[in-house]
Amino acid sequence: MKKQVNNFNQLRGVIPPMVTPLKDGERLDVEGLAHLVEHILAGGVHGLFLLGTTGEAPDLPYKLRRELVRRVCAQVNGRVPVLVGVTDTVFVESVRFASFAKDHGAAAVVAAPPYYFAAGQPELVAYYTHLADALPLPLFLYNMPSQVKVMIDVKTVVELAKHPNIVGLKDSSGNIGYFNACRYQLRNQPDFSILMGIEEAIGEIVLLGAHGGVAGGANLFPRTFVDLYNAAVAHDVDRVLALHERVMHVSSLIYGVGQHNSSFVKGVKCALSLMGICSDVLAVPREPFNPANRALIRERLVELGVLA
Amino acid sequence: MKKQVNNFNQLRGVIPPMVTPLKDGERLDVEGLAHLVEHILAGGVHGLFLLGTTGEAPDLPYKLRRELVRRVCAQVNGRVPVLVGVTDTVFVESVRFASFAKDHGAAAVVAAPPYYFAAGQPELVAYYTHLADALPLPLFLYNMPSQVKVMIDVKTVVELAKHPNIVGLKDSSGNIGYFNACRYQLRNQPDFSILMGIEEAIGEIVLLGAHGGVAGGANLFPRTFVDLYNAAVAHDVDRVLALHERVMHVSSLIYGVGQHNSSFVKGVKCALSLMGICSDVLAVPREPFNPANRALIRERLVELGVLA
Amino acid sequence: MKKQVNNFNQLRGVIPPMVTPLKDGERLDVEGLAHLVEHILAGGVHGLFLLGTTGEAPDLPYKLRRELVRRVCAQVNGRVPVLVGVTDTVFVESVRFASFAKDHGAAAVVAAPPYYFAAGQPELVAYYTHLADALPLPLFLYNMPSQVKVMIDVKTVVELAKHPNIVGLKDSSGNIGYFNACRYQLRNQPDFSILMGIEEAIGEIVLLGAHGGVAGGANLFPRTFVDLYNAAVAHDVDRVLALHERVMHVSSLIYGVGQHNSSFVKGVKCALSLMGICSDVLAVPREPFNPANRALIRERLVELGVLA
Amino acid sequence: MKKQVNNFNQLRGVIPPMVTPLKDGERLDVEGLAHLVEHILAGGVHGLFLLGTTGEAPDLPYKLRRELVRRVCAQVNGRVPVLVGVTDTVFVESVRFASFAKDHGAAAVVAAPPYYFAAGQPELVAYYTHLADALPLPLFLYNMPSQVKVMIDVKTVVELAKHPNIVGLKDSSGNIGYFNACRYQLRNQPDFSILMGIEEAIGEIVLLGAHGGVAGGANLFPRTFVDLYNAAVAHDVDRVLALHERVMHVSSLIYGVGQHNSSFVKGVKCALSLMGICSDVLAVPREPFNPANRALIRERLVELGVLA
Repeated sequence: MKKQVNNFNQLRGVIPPMVTPLKDGERLDVEGLAHLVEHILAGGVHGLFLLGTTGEAPDLPYKLRRELVRRVCAQVNGRVPVLVGVTDTVFVESVRFASFAKDHGAAAVVAAPPYYFAAGQPELVAYYTHLADALPLPLFLYNMPSQVKVMIDVKTVVELAKHPNIVGLKDSSGNIGYFNACRYQLRNQPDFSILMGIEEAIGEIVLLGAHGGVAGGANLFPRTFVDLYNAAVAHDVDRVLALHERVMHVSSLIYGVGQHNSSFVKGVKCALSLMGICSDVLAVPREPFNPANRALIRERLVELGVLA
Repeated sequence: MKKQVNNFNQLRGVIPPMVTPLKDGERLDVEGLAHLVEHILAGGVHGLFLLGTTGEAPDLPYKLRRELVRRVCAQVNGRVPVLVGVTDTVFVESVRFASFAKDHGAAAVVAAPPYYFAAGQPELVAYYTHLADALPLPLFLYNMPSQVKVMIDVKTVVELAKHPNIVGLKDSSGNIGYFNACRYQLRNQPDFSILMGIEEAIGEIVLLGAHGGVAGGANLFPRTFVDLYNAAVAHDVDRVLALHERVMHVSSLIYGVGQHNSSFVKGVKCALSLMGICSDVLAVPREPFNPANRALIRERLVELGVLA
Repeated sequence: MKKQVNNFNQLRGVIPPMVTPLKDGERLDVEGLAHLVEHILAGGVHGLFLLGTTGEAPDLPYKLRRELVRRVCAQVNGRVPVLVGVTDTVFVESVRFASFAKDHGAAAVVAAPPYYFAAGQPELVAYYTHLADALPLPLFLYNMPSQVKVMIDVKTVVELAKHPNIVGLKDSSGNIGYFNACRYQLRNQPDFSILMGIEEAIGEIVLLGAHGGVAGGANLFPRTFVDLYNAAVAHDVDRVLALHERVMHVSSLIYGVGQHNSSFVKGVKCALSLMGICSDVLAVPREPFNPANRALIRERLVELGVLA
Repeated sequence: MKKQVNNFNQLRGVIPPMVTPLKDGERLDVEGLAHLVEHILAGGVHGLFLLGTTGEAPDLPYKLRRELVRRVCAQVNGRVPVLVGVTDTVFVESVRFASFAKDHGAAAVVAAPPYYFAAGQPELVAYYTHLADALPLPLFLYNMPSQVKVMIDVKTVVELAKHPNIVGLKDSSGNIGYFNACRYQLRNQPDFSILMGIEEAIGEIVLLGAHGGVAGGANLFPRTFVDLYNAAVAHDVDRVLALHERVMHVSSLIYGVGQHNSSFVKGVKCALSLMGICSDVLAVPREPFNPANRALIRERLVELGVLA
């Protein structure tokens, strides 16, 4: 099997896209980072995804990204596989950073399409093929059209899934027809992991046999998502329903505060800060929630039973 | 309960968006229409939705639309509720056509936002409120951003769901986060029907308790979707999986032929024509599949076991 | 020349897209309409365009549209050519309405692409070819991507310009590269009128030899635009500069009030109402400006020297 | 005046956005670069803009970008001001690279909005204010919505133009209404340079008093654009017309080959290579034109009288 080429086992389960705890635009919140990693791992998650969109990767200096990878890989120390986002508009930077990640023990890398010039589908095939050829770690495709202006078409995914070093897809389009089409087209390649990037849909797609999901909310409540995943794998529909309700409750209370594109990350970081886990500083140029929104998040964490 | 205002019972199940069998741009394929209605009803569907996007409504003359409503309501004769699309950029035309539909026995109407000038959310609240006030039948909101350029926001849906004459939402955005958020926000209003417009997602959302779906493929295979719906209601996950696989098989074979926006309708009409049910003529300016694509659809119907 | 086929002389100059004075959603403001037509003609304009986007055509019942055409054609009585918008998603309605327009003395019709299903370019070629074949009056293409979701590509325009009954293009995309490319590609077909739909650009494109423009602001200040056009034709750059400044002044004061998509039409109708010319009622579901915005428009008309 | 703060004189004229001659994805075509700079300067241009969209900056490693700035600044040696693109999703990288540019003699920097997370307008005001505060060189705003997913609104430009270190706007939206609105709103601040990024519109906007333009075609034919600019400044409309025709001729022949987003850069680099000036290698993952397209460009350069 192709996965054996890289000694990479097929990925299933809940893989939180970790937020990046910051002191300021150039420095990690080192203590908060250590807390956060343990908080998430304590929930029983199946992997950890650093430097995705939730991790604000494109806005972070490489020096900081490298320190993050180094610290987290050392702390995780093999307890779960660590995936590292290497999305970059500069090809060689992606390759270089993947090398760094491998040297520090990462298990795989994740790359969205280049996000300045929007590529056509044949260009995406060429880009990912060259990238996977050059990378020292197995690669997950990352479909994120809202940020990169282009979908990785189902046909392109199917074509790329033949590459021995391309091992999965993280789909954050939210387009359920697309997600199901990718799964159906690759049904005979069950070791190609197709992960759902919309946490509000993880219950249902795992019930239907999908591999798992990348849930931003698992930064806050890792156990909830792991329980949901396990219930879905066990076809325990009633329990899936109850946990899905909890997921929707969190989603409606925490992510809807504020009004910009970035309100999801702001909400999660604000809640983590109120829970005493890490700082709520965001990558430049984003600002943390103002006191009114912070007070609102606090109220809602009380409502969720997390704060007293 | 508000539904009693209109003697309208909450809608659940599979409601096919019927294609409109045509002789040409101004005339119905009357015989094909009669066949198609019986073909669909024989599958045990829970309702019938005329003149939606799959019905090519915006491109059909009102004379034809009226004849369609008259004929289908007479033929169905109360066996299932008939829903009629009244989407129009002209407010009074929507109201007038709804009156006509009521007079002929329709159970409810469905309206997407006006589709030339894209309305803001406050304008949508005002528009739908005025429309629901003026309509003689209960109204389903129809979220169809790809055609009308605007989403009906979750907050707007929640606001409009308070109106006694607005009884449901058909969501064809494909955005699973949006669909689940609408369901969650209206969880205490279970008689407000929230219907999934993407047939490839009906299995999973009914498993999780959603009301049902509007499946274009049920023009071809109504029984498959009804079985899927029933399996999901019964929480029979294994059977859902098998039927979902069938749904995906049909979707991958029939809807992917051709390359335009309209290839879904073309594929369904072409298959219906090959199955001997009705004509494959499309509303002007669309053309049926060329012989090569038609031959491809034939092959695939053989593969699906529908043609020999 | 093809224009002789239809006895249609090439169109040059300022052709205002007239707003539609309304009493309510179904009735014309008949008196206001008569005032408005004389107000505009008194400015020396070169044509009159009824039922475009500024005329809110897609939101008006056909009964009202017919009355409008009948009244305006009778009143204009050949003083200038009258162009009538026949954009419709229903092919036969466009043809039928064009016949009506011809019977009442209109000189040409204008059609944007069907605006529910977005057509591909080959479909646009087919659509416009069939339409031009069927129409009893010469046809202007109407490029309006913000409302209809598709550009009429330069190549498509060039192809369609060969049709003997397609006599021009109104481009409201605002895309200056596109506009200049259309002009360049059709430079050897000078009787094909290419009209600029963005009034803030009319000065410069006429200086460079373009045929003219469709200026919504000419509902208010027809003479300004005619003077601008004449100055540009005469290559009087200094005078163009002074009049362009006036056009920008009006634009910045009147169209920027309010915040929706429809604020342009609202501003123009509000100003016309304050100038005593016609009502400010808009097609359903739009509302006229609230008192605060109306007061702002009044102040600005004073600043423009139009009100005391 | 604010410009004196930085000893920066207001910029007027033709400022070519230089392509970046490459050997491969990590190395400059050093010899080609030297030729290209002289070729462009020989045309009498008024400035040189490195590392914009035409320069493929977002896809180039910083090591290469630094070498480019160092080499070009040394070679230009004060003959014209050199502007350097510092657009980056990482705030501190923009600042760092601007420092480098200043140390090597650049006159100003140019920055498009961060292009992964699309910022709202208040976030853009904050972002550019912080950036301009931190930068050691005067800043041009760069409006490029097709790549960065957000327009810098007219109001945002007006607000930012008050900053003593923000000295101009390069607008590559192609939206002529927006461009003219920016010019009008800043008419009392004539030292704020507003540059047109669509070369096909430079003639007309300079006739109307605009400061100048950023013409990708000036990599090939710098003199043509300089002549066009001078004719427009002199209000010599006939000469503007003749030169505008030449510009359109080049545009229609060279930029229309190929079909992707990147065909403009491919066409320019291919033509430069055929003219013996520099290599046609593109930044990874783009490929130069294939032999058929290259042959087409050659034919067209013959037609333009550039090759025999």
